Amino acid sequence: MNDDPRIILLAHGSSDQRWCQTFEKLATPTLESVAGSRIAYMELAEPSLETIIRDGKEDGINTFIIIPLFLAAGRHLRKDVPGMIEELQAAHNVTITLAPPIGENPQLGNAIRDVVNQALER
Amino acid sequence: MNDDPRIILLAHGSSDQRWCQTFEKLATPTLESVAGSRIAYMELAEPSLETIIRDGKEDGINTFIIIPLFLAAGRHLRKDVPGMIEELQAAHNVTITLAPPIGENPQLGNAIRDVVNQALER
Repeated sequence: MNDDPRIILLAHGSSDQRWCQTFEKLATPTLESVAGSRIAYMELAEPSLETIIRDGKEDGINTFIIIPLFLAAGRHLRKDVPGMIEELQAAHNVTITLAPPIGENPQLGNAIRDVVNQALER
Repeated sequence: MNDDPRIILLAHGSSDQRWCQTFEKLATPTLESVAGSRIAYMELAEPSLETIIRDGKEDGINTFIIIPLFLAAGRHLRKDVPGMIEELQAAHNVTITLAPPIGENPQLGNAIRDVVNQALER
């Protein structure tokens, strides 16, 4: 039995494939660094959060940590995602924790500064 | 005369003050590092993009570079913001360049990996 939680990077999702590709690139360093981690979309794209929870359950995973690839918490993270989590926990008998969005970590602000300075050097 | 472009960090905006506060914190390292830089909101919050362009023009600035605090380019960055830029350029006789969203820079992916690893250590 594996008690390690599975990390899920949750992006908003879009019907525009270019939008999803940007998130897949953003997620790649994490997916390569954190064993078993996955990307999932809240809506409009696959894999959905439900798909990833169901797959994890089949792999014997019972606990999940969702790290939102969002810069800030709006209605989606304050209301929609907690509602989805409640339903998924009941439906699949798993424990799902919602972490703060990545943008609330000060490291992101420093990365933005570096990106801007790099853009200015060009 | 000052020929340096003014850097504008453009966030989406929200009527939720907590949302805007997260973006203000995210912008702080850049605002402290890049002389004259400003944050602006696309909608639902102040200062608006128009406010920042008008203020810049009064300061003698004629060129602006918008760096979107967005992880990926969706409808807003492909359509709405270019439309706003076209109108603002004509109304204020300025030149405005739209840079790619910060999430298209590979450094952001590395920062996300670091944030996730930090969250896992806790």
